[in-house]
Formats: sequence, structure tokens, C-alpha cells
Amino acid sequence: MRLAEIAEKIGGELVGGGDFDVRDVAELAGASSDSLSYVESERQLKEPTGAGALIVPPGIEPDRPAIRCENPKLGFARAITLLRPPTPPVPGIHPSAVIDEKAKLGEGVSIGPSASIGPGAEIGNGCHIGAGARVGEGVILGPDCIIHPNCVLYPGATLGARVVLHAGAVIASDGFGYVPDGSGGVEKFPQTGTVVIEDDVEIGACAVVDRASIGETRIKRGVKIDNLVQIAHNVTIGEGSLIASQTGISGSVTLGRGVIMGGRVGVTDHVEIGDGAIFGAMSGVSKSLEGGKIYLDAPAVEIADARRRIVIYSRLPEIFRRLQKVERKLEDIETC
Amino acid sequence: MRLAEIAEKIGGELVGGGDFDVRDVAELAGASSDSLSYVESERQLKEPTGAGALIVPPGIEPDRPAIRCENPKLGFARAITLLRPPTPPVPGIHPSAVIDEKAKLGEGVSIGPSASIGPGAEIGNGCHIGAGARVGEGVILGPDCIIHPNCVLYPGATLGARVVLHAGAVIASDGFGYVPDGSGGVEKFPQTGTVVIEDDVEIGACAVVDRASIGETRIKRGVKIDNLVQIAHNVTIGEGSLIASQTGISGSVTLGRGVIMGGRVGVTDHVEIGDGAIFGAMSGVSKSLEGGKIYLDAPAVEIADARRRIVIYSRLPEIFRRLQKVERKLEDIETC
Amino acid sequence: MRLAEIAEKIGGELVGGGDFDVRDVAELAGASSDSLSYVESERQLKEPTGAGALIVPPGIEPDRPAIRCENPKLGFARAITLLRPPTPPVPGIHPSAVIDEKAKLGEGVSIGPSASIGPGAEIGNGCHIGAGARVGEGVILGPDCIIHPNCVLYPGATLGARVVLHAGAVIASDGFGYVPDGSGGVEKFPQTGTVVIEDDVEIGACAVVDRASIGETRIKRGVKIDNLVQIAHNVTIGEGSLIASQTGISGSVTLGRGVIMGGRVGVTDHVEIGDGAIFGAMSGVSKSLEGGKIYLDAPAVEIADARRRIVIYSRLPEIFRRLQKVERKLEDIETC
Repeated sequence: MRLAEIAEKIGGELVGGGDFDVRDVAELAGASSDSLSYVESERQLKEPTGAGALIVPPGIEPDRPAIRCENPKLGFARAITLLRPPTPPVPGIHPSAVIDEKAKLGEGVSIGPSASIGPGAEIGNGCHIGAGARVGEGVILGPDCIIHPNCVLYPGATLGARVVLHAGAVIASDGFGYVPDGSGGVEKFPQTGTVVIEDDVEIGACAVVDRASIGETRIKRGVKIDNLVQIAHNVTIGEGSLIASQTGISGSVTLGRGVIMGGRVGVTDHVEIGDGAIFGAMSGVSKSLEGGKIYLDAPAVEIADARRRIVIYSRLPEIFRRLQKVERKLEDIETC
Repeated sequence: MRLAEIAEKIGGELVGGGDFDVRDVAELAGASSDSLSYVESERQLKEPTGAGALIVPPGIEPDRPAIRCENPKLGFARAITLLRPPTPPVPGIHPSAVIDEKAKLGEGVSIGPSASIGPGAEIGNGCHIGAGARVGEGVILGPDCIIHPNCVLYPGATLGARVVLHAGAVIASDGFGYVPDGSGGVEKFPQTGTVVIEDDVEIGACAVVDRASIGETRIKRGVKIDNLVQIAHNVTIGEGSLIASQTGISGSVTLGRGVIMGGRVGVTDHVEIGDGAIFGAMSGVSKSLEGGKIYLDAPAVEIADARRRIVIYSRLPEIFRRLQKVERKLEDIETC
Repeated sequence: MRLAEIAEKIGGELVGGGDFDVRDVAELAGASSDSLSYVESERQLKEPTGAGALIVPPGIEPDRPAIRCENPKLGFARAITLLRPPTPPVPGIHPSAVIDEKAKLGEGVSIGPSASIGPGAEIGNGCHIGAGARVGEGVILGPDCIIHPNCVLYPGATLGARVVLHAGAVIASDGFGYVPDGSGGVEKFPQTGTVVIEDDVEIGACAVVDRASIGETRIKRGVKIDNLVQIAHNVTIGEGSLIASQTGISGSVTLGRGVIMGGRVGVTDHVEIGDGAIFGAMSGVSKSLEGGKIYLDAPAVEIADARRRIVIYSRLPEIFRRLQKVERKLEDIETC
């Protein structure tokens, strides 16, 4: 594809070399001479690269054919899709798929081998249901969802438009709720609520979103959830939040809009997290926290405080020795 | 359902409004006027709710139709099942399921689309095997087990009665065992043992229970395990233990009866935990610990000690400043 | 099997009792009189065992029929395989499996019920594809791979020889990459790269290995990965590394050869770990670290330092009291 065409399609400004024929995208290191890569800074521009063309930010003069973008990474993301266009699944229902006669399928739906669709399920137009995926009774999928192979949607889950579930993800499984039965054992607290997943949510492989005990678990519009994440019953995740791998959100937690969690954050039950709060990897959240701040550590505190205590923690042996020295000096003084 | 009928069936005492027609259960907040909810304390009774009827504990005078229960949450759990009765799977074997001719099926068994049952497997009366579940060679299931879609039981696993496995759970996979081969590599230590899961165990979505290397991994009666939990080879989990999400139990660990673990607890290999020990979320257990106590933190210690050190940890920067001040004062004194 | 035959086949020296008829292998405790067990030390030899025969290390005189091996555990591992030989899957394609007409199958391949093989996939000689496993378009499997039930290989993944994937493992799912779109939301950074898994790799149940965004994620020869592990996009794991359960490796991390990670280690993105580095369970790696050392704690430091600070951490309340005492003494001195 000609560089000029890419520039136009990604909304960038052609800096030079409009006729340059881009064959592929590549990371800076190891790029071949017919590839397009990108830099975000003057420093990156100096890194060795064989890339034949670059996407650069404003204020940087490239030494080869280039496109200038306000946000080079965003432009590059769009260029990837141009040069490596995804192959859309061919509509059609594989003969080995099992579609209950009371299920409703939209137009242009694609259903893979051995997938199963339960009674009363509604599959929106253009949805792709991967091989071996299980869509339970009464599940509703908005248009253009992609359900990768071997996902499981328990009965009653509701998904909006363009929701993507990666392989092995489980939606609307029972929450973990038991009540002491008064004679030393427990009885199951019935998990009869639902899960609602709004438009443009993407959920990673082997992630689990539990159904509510009575009401609903809700993953709001545009939320992105990574692999192996646990979302417990009755949780609400606010619009546009990003939740990295292995994070666990306990029951009845509410996250605000645009919350960002690094890998393996843990959140205790029934807390509320304000809009835009950011959590460093491995943070442990043990109480409600206000939005607009960056948190770290377990128990999680604001990052400046967290860093201070982490630094001091790493110096604990030295601090202990200094304390001992102080004690000895004091004894000497008292002895005098 | 009339409130009087609910009271009778859940073993509670009708306080008033026996003719009140309950249409559904609801959480306190957001309950509609034809719903039943519950309170556990005087404080909760003061929370705004539109619930038409309540379950209350002894000693609390309700202001509307109500049932009095020794344990309101338990009573409410039972009321949920009355008002939202689960729909039992219809017995029958889906034509797309693959049942080996050497497998034995009990009466009233239900097997979903594309599930497969291996040779020599025995499926107890009333079991439900979900779509796409894989029951390996020689697996034995007691009566009334529910195996949700896409679970995998490796050959030789044995389940008791009424065991529930949630979607994507894997039982009796190989433990993680390798031996240095003397020339810089490793050889697999064969994982030839079994897994035994006793009656009334429930295991969460995408949880994994490894088979023993030689002997058995055993999950005893009434244990409840949450999503994404790892149970390594040769582990024993004592009766009635509750293990929350993302917890990991390393090889050859023995947990006593009634052990409770919050989310994402980690237990190192070969340790023994006494009956009734309770572990706060994110605890890290690095040695054997006696029962009947509450533990927290990593390394896990009794909760009072843990809280003390966590509090001091959060004050480390202040402590360091105070130490520096003490040092300066001492220098001043010495200079005099 | 006669003890003499076992000795010969595992490459050990028969110490006595060559005609002893070994019926099974067993752990030391609970072994029956016709079983073979093993000890690694004089101390273990004194533990009560009913084992009829033992594998012992050099320098230990057994009191019963025995085999002497340089490495008794390795010898025992080999004896297990002799006495409990794995039953190889019978070659053949189950009629319910779905093989795309453009897929190529090697000789002696076994494909289980309801598995599916996509167009252009190449399955090497002797591979076993378990029930319900999903092999995507263009996936290449070397010879003798074992893909357990319900695994998912996204399109384009490449596996070497003898790779084992345990049930529910997901290979080449999308990495977690999003770019701010400049108007408060995010756009997906396309995940168009691949995953290469080299020879003799074993990957645990419900583990996830993401595809690269552009280049490749690579798991090198002989790596062993436990259950529920997360390997993010563009990661490289060096030859022979061992990664225990619930560990998470963030994007673009490079591990050297022979790296060992205990359970639930976390590694932040873009760091490099040197050959032979060892990490204790629950370590948190926040920067590049050199090889050949043992690390522990979060943030991970060399084990001696880690242990020192962990010990002092556990004494924090005492240290705080001692600091307060010092302060009071100083005040007394100043008052004088």
C-alpha cells in the first residue's frame, strides 16, 4: 500500500515519500526496508532500525518517508489494521453446531463447529460464535459480538454490541456465596441474578465474570478485561475501565469510570473506587478509595506515599542497625 | 407465594401479613413493593427499602409483613430457592454427545450437546453433564453431580454425590513435577495418581485440581472452591473448607477441617494447616500453622500481630524521619 | 516386574533381591510390601515404610531389596513409567471431529470427539488432539504433541515436537493492548503477531500464552509452565525455564535460559531476566535482574537481603516501641 494512501486513511500528514510501497508493519528493531514502523520521541528516532518508513509525532523531522501523527502509536495501530486486515469469519452455521429450535439467529451470523446455542438465546446480526462455545438458555447477544472458541455463557447473560470474549472465558457462573446452616456446615446462597456486559467490552482468555446473587453484575461500555481476571458477583465496572491480567475484584465492588488496574490487583468486597483511579500492579485494595489518584502497594495508598514506604522497607535492615547503634550510644550516655 | 407459606417452608415465624403475596426476592436497596428482602440488624432496618416484606432476626420489630428467623440470611437463601426455583435439566442424552460404548450411565442422566464420556466412565443417577464437558476414561461420578459446560475430567478422577463443577474447571490434570536429569535438563516426574472429590463439593469456573504424582489428591466432603483456584498434586483439603478465588495451594499441602481462605491466598508446599484456621485475603503461608486462629499477611501470622506490623509498615517514612531526628540529637549531645 | 529388570532399565545398580517381584510404585508412607519406593537420605531410610523394595542413593546400605542410583528420584521417576506405563491414545479420527478439508494430518494422528481442526492447519505425525480441542487456521504442530481436551490454539500458532498442552490452555489469544484515542476512549492496538512454542514444552491447565502484537511470543525448548499462568504478548521464555502456577509475565519480558519461578511470581513489562535466575514464590519483579542469583520478595531482591528485610518487617512493632523508648530517653536527657 502506498504511504500516501496510509497517511490519508489513518488521518496523518504525509511528510515525504508518498509513493513508498509499504508491505508490512514492524517493530522498530528488526524492521525490514519495506516496513512501516513508528517512533514517539527524538530518542526513539535515533534507535537503529531498517524500517523503510516511519510514523512520527509533531516536531520530529524524519530521515526517511514518513507520516506525521498527533498520536503516532494510534496512527500505527490503524496502519496495522490496514496492512494486516483481519479475515472476517464467513457467515454460516457449521453443520456440527447445535442450535436449539427456540433460539433466534440474526443475519450474517457465523457459528463454528460443535458450538451450541440454548433455547431462547438471541444472537445479534453479524455475531461470530467460535467452535465449542456454549451459549446458554436465554442469553442475548447484541450485534457483531465475537465469542472465541470454548467460551461459556451461562443462561441469562446479556451482551451488548461488539463484545469480544476470548477463548475459555466464562460469563455468569455462580458467585461464591454460602451461609452457615447453624449445624456446622453451609448452605449455598442461591446465585439467581444476571450479568450484563455493555457495548464494546473485551474480556480475556479464561477470565470469569460471576452472575449476581440476586441483582446484576454489570460490565459497562468499553471496559477491557485481560486474561485470568476474576470478577465476582454483584460487581459493577465503570465505563472504559482497563483491568489487567490476574486481577481479582471481590463481591459487590463498584469501580467508577475509567479506572485502570495493573496486573494482579486485588480488591476486597463491598468497596467503591472513584472515577479514573489508577492502581499499580499487585496493589491490594482494602477500602474504598477516591478517584483521580494513582495508588500502589498493599494496602494500597497514593503512589507517593507507597513509594516512600517501599523505599524505607527496602532499607529496613539498615534502619534496624541504626536503631541499635542509637540504643548503644544512649546506654553509654546513661552509664556516664 | 403467600408470606405464610414461605414462613412455613423456610422454618421461620410469621410476624404479620400472612396473606401478603410475595412475587420475588430482592436486595434491600431497590426492592419493589411486592418483594421480600431481609435485614440482619436494627441498623439495616433503618435503611430505605421499598420491600413489601422482610425477614428479620429475633428481637427486631418490623414495620411491615415479616418472617422472623434465627438466621435471616439463611432463611432468605431458602426463600430465594422457593421464589426462583432452579429449572432442573431435562433427562436425556443429546444426539451430538459422544458416549463410549463401555461407559455406564445411571438413571435420569442428562448429557448436553457435544459432551463426551470416555470408556469405563460411570455416571451416577441424576447427573447432568453440560455441553462440551469431557469425562475421561474410568471417571466415576456419584449421583446428582452437575458438570457445567466445557469442564474437563482427566481419566481416573472420582467424584462423590452432588458435586458441582463450574464451567471450564479442570480435574485431575498432571501435577507440576520434574526431576533434574543430570545433564542440565529435566525429566517429567510421572503424574500417575488420582483425584478424589467427596460429596457436596462445589468447584468454581476455570479452577484446576491436579492429580497426585502417585497417591491421591483429595477434596473432602462439603468443600467449596471458588473460580481460578489452583490445587496442586497430592493436596488434601479438609471437610467443609471454603477457598476463595485465585487462591493457590502448592503440592502435598494438608488443610484441616473447616479452613477458610479469603481471595488469593498462597500456600507453600508440604505444610499442614490445622482445623478451622482462617486466612485473610492475599495471605502468604510459608510454614505449617495451627488451627482455630485467624491469620493475615505474607508471611502469614496471627491477625493481631499482622495488623500491628501492617500499621507500622504504613508509618515507615515517619519512623525513618524520627530515627534520623534521634540520630541528630545524639550527635548534638556527643558534640557537647 | 523383577527388581533386576527395573534396575537395568533405569540404569541403576542392583544391590540385592533381583528376583523380588515389584507390583507397583508407592510413596514411602503407606507403601505396601510388593511396592517399590525411594529414599534420598539416611534420615529418610529410617522413616517407617512397608515398601518391599527401595531405590537408594550411593553410600546408603538398604535393609531390603534395592537399587542404587546416583539420583534416586530420577530413577524412581523412570520406574514409575515402567510400572504404570501410559496408555497411548489409539490413532484414529473420531467421526464427530471436524477436520477442515484444507488441514493436513500426519501419520498415526489421534483426534478426539468434537475436536476441530481449521483450514491450513498441519498436525504432525503421532499427535494426539483431545476431545473438544480447537486448532485454529494455519496452526502448525510438530510430531507427537499432546493437546488435552478443550484447549484452544488461535490461528497461526506454531508448536514444535512433543509439546504438551493441558486442558483448557489457550495459545495465541490477543495480547492486552489499547491506545488512547484522543477523545477519552481507547482503540485496540491490533494483535497480529504469532506464538512459537518450541520442542518439549509443557503448558498447564487454563494457562494462557498471548500472541505478539506484531512480532512473536516465543516459549523456547524444554520450558515447563504450570496451571493458570499468564504469558503476555511479545514475551520470550528462555530454554528450560520452569514457571510455577499462577505466575504472570507481562508484555515484552525476556527470561533467559533455565530461569525458575515459584508460584505466583509477577514480572512487570519490558524487563530482562538473566540465565538461571531463581525466584521464590510470590516475588514481584519490577526491573531487570541479572542471572545466576536467587531472588525473593516484592520488589524482588537477592534472597539474603530479602530474608533480612522480611525478618525485620516481622519485628516492626518491637522496633517502633524501641524507637519510642529511645525518644523518651533523649527527652529525659534534654530535660536535664
